[in-house]
Amino acid sequence: MIGLRPNIAKMAGYTPGEQINDPAVVKLNTNENPYPPSPRVFEAIQAVLTGDKLRKYPEPSGISFRKAATRVLGIDSESILIGNGSDDILTILTRTFVPEGGRIVTLTPSYSLYKSLAEIQGARFQTVAFGPNWSLPAVSAIPPDTSIFFLANPNSPSGTFIDIQKIAAFIEGLPCPVVVDEAYADFAEDNALRLAKLPKVIVSRSFSKSMALAGIRFGYAVAQPEIIQEMIKVKDSYNCDVLSLTAAEAAIQDTAYVTETRSKILATRERMQPALEALGFQVTPSQANFLWCRRSDRPVQPIYEALKQQRILVRYMQYSDYGEGLRISVGTDAEIDRLLSCLHDII
Amino acid sequence: MIGLRPNIAKMAGYTPGEQINDPAVVKLNTNENPYPPSPRVFEAIQAVLTGDKLRKYPEPSGISFRKAATRVLGIDSESILIGNGSDDILTILTRTFVPEGGRIVTLTPSYSLYKSLAEIQGARFQTVAFGPNWSLPAVSAIPPDTSIFFLANPNSPSGTFIDIQKIAAFIEGLPCPVVVDEAYADFAEDNALRLAKLPKVIVSRSFSKSMALAGIRFGYAVAQPEIIQEMIKVKDSYNCDVLSLTAAEAAIQDTAYVTETRSKILATRERMQPALEALGFQVTPSQANFLWCRRSDRPVQPIYEALKQQRILVRYMQYSDYGEGLRISVGTDAEIDRLLSCLHDII
Repeated sequence: MIGLRPNIAKMAGYTPGEQINDPAVVKLNTNENPYPPSPRVFEAIQAVLTGDKLRKYPEPSGISFRKAATRVLGIDSESILIGNGSDDILTILTRTFVPEGGRIVTLTPSYSLYKSLAEIQGARFQTVAFGPNWSLPAVSAIPPDTSIFFLANPNSPSGTFIDIQKIAAFIEGLPCPVVVDEAYADFAEDNALRLAKLPKVIVSRSFSKSMALAGIRFGYAVAQPEIIQEMIKVKDSYNCDVLSLTAAEAAIQDTAYVTETRSKILATRERMQPALEALGFQVTPSQANFLWCRRSDRPVQPIYEALKQQRILVRYMQYSDYGEGLRISVGTDAEIDRLLSCLHDII
Repeated sequence: MIGLRPNIAKMAGYTPGEQINDPAVVKLNTNENPYPPSPRVFEAIQAVLTGDKLRKYPEPSGISFRKAATRVLGIDSESILIGNGSDDILTILTRTFVPEGGRIVTLTPSYSLYKSLAEIQGARFQTVAFGPNWSLPAVSAIPPDTSIFFLANPNSPSGTFIDIQKIAAFIEGLPCPVVVDEAYADFAEDNALRLAKLPKVIVSRSFSKSMALAGIRFGYAVAQPEIIQEMIKVKDSYNCDVLSLTAAEAAIQDTAYVTETRSKILATRERMQPALEALGFQVTPSQANFLWCRRSDRPVQPIYEALKQQRILVRYMQYSDYGEGLRISVGTDAEIDRLLSCLHDII
């Protein structure tokens, strides 16, 4: 093809999880929230569903959302950048910090989008294995010419969480900007927001999981204002639309609702683990809204296929440098009962 | 700043038009549609405002929108790529075809985002002057090492339109992919969709102007399926949200409504030109929803400022290689009456 960049030609492209538009399917494959978003989200969207709001461009910096986030999180609004989902934040970070031929480094196994971002940018991609029990590796394992380091915490697919003080010490020794990808942080016991005060840390957040708003695409970054200013140059001016901004502003302020759905999800996660273990899975203790399930007695892909036959979707994941497993989202109690019953029949 | 790419550090960043959230302001600065979107858009959004739709990820390829577009435009759905606004399409194209150190070429004066895209990508940016009367330059003026050529048609700020047959002949001689940026095509007498059958042409469309949906961020690209396949690798998987996709699908199918608002806008444009000329402006004949107004007797920035005092926003534009002018969007008849009356007092 005329003019196509060779790095684009040779890359395969990121494969998102299957999105099946069938309400009869139990969807436990992309870590969506099993509960709907806050009722305030619907009220807020209704209030801006006017001809004038839809026909005009949104406010490009999302100032109204940022002010709400400031009140909830105690972070200065100049330290917040809005994104069209946290994938948009990760893309903006890549374009801000990674030159062609640069190097993106992450741990493995982790979020596979990081590799795609490196390929699109024409950069090298390098993974470093986790230490024992999903701990951080030695700082010396990170190449000195790293352009950016992505750390998903809680990690996917493992659901594991690394202590924030350990992350702070690790970052100290790194030669590059570090992104703490906190898509699942609202399900964990702690988070890294306080590290965003450091001059080389960017925390990324998603509204697709704890806020139950995967459909509206919203995320944000937190970092020092000097970093945010550079990221603003790279983002599309109008990367977030008026309905998403409105939904996000309403959702982040309804902390009582988020706490309530979070509690339900954590309670379900609590009983899923022993139930899956009783079925012969090795289940990694999770601080996210999913469980990473492996087996040593048999391959898991046929189990994924058999569940799909029963209209239950989980995520089969296979890493060349790690092996395979099933990543199972925490659904409602009824969904998990159906999952466990089907697994009982299959195994 | 640690790790910041030098091209990002030295760029200024694209400056979007002022977005003032005050209904009392007559907003004629960013070429929004003065009429609301189709009533069907509101019905369609209401129908998907459910917990299940918001909490789940959207279908990543926008297949439902693409099928609707296929019926309306007579273009195969495999030839269509969805975008989070046409700026997202232009970003995806840049990342697909322009390496670091590559070269983006466009005519001047034109859409200033093209320069920002080059800067973000770490590419060179080169402009070539229009021929006489806003015609195409000689093909030989385009450097042989051009990575991508952006042609806005109708052009902004001029509103001028280049005959599609002339564009076809011009493209024939170019060494690179050519983007025909048709953000304003619905206000023109013809369009370049039929050129998207050529193996190096990509047509870009926006829903922010003729569809009156600047607030929801939607655009699309039309090109050969082989090109679309490469662009899919570069786009964020979930670049369009469920509400925007729904709105776009409803809007594109309500062709009667688009025809009706278009007619009103063209009628207003028709009477604006002589009225502005009577006030001493040189007004370029426009095939878009705005008019490019210049003066040789006095600078226009004070006129912009005086209008702003009267709560009328127009766009003051200044090009180092061309000069200055006011780009005035076609508003409702009442808005334009107020504009003309204010201009009469000012001048």
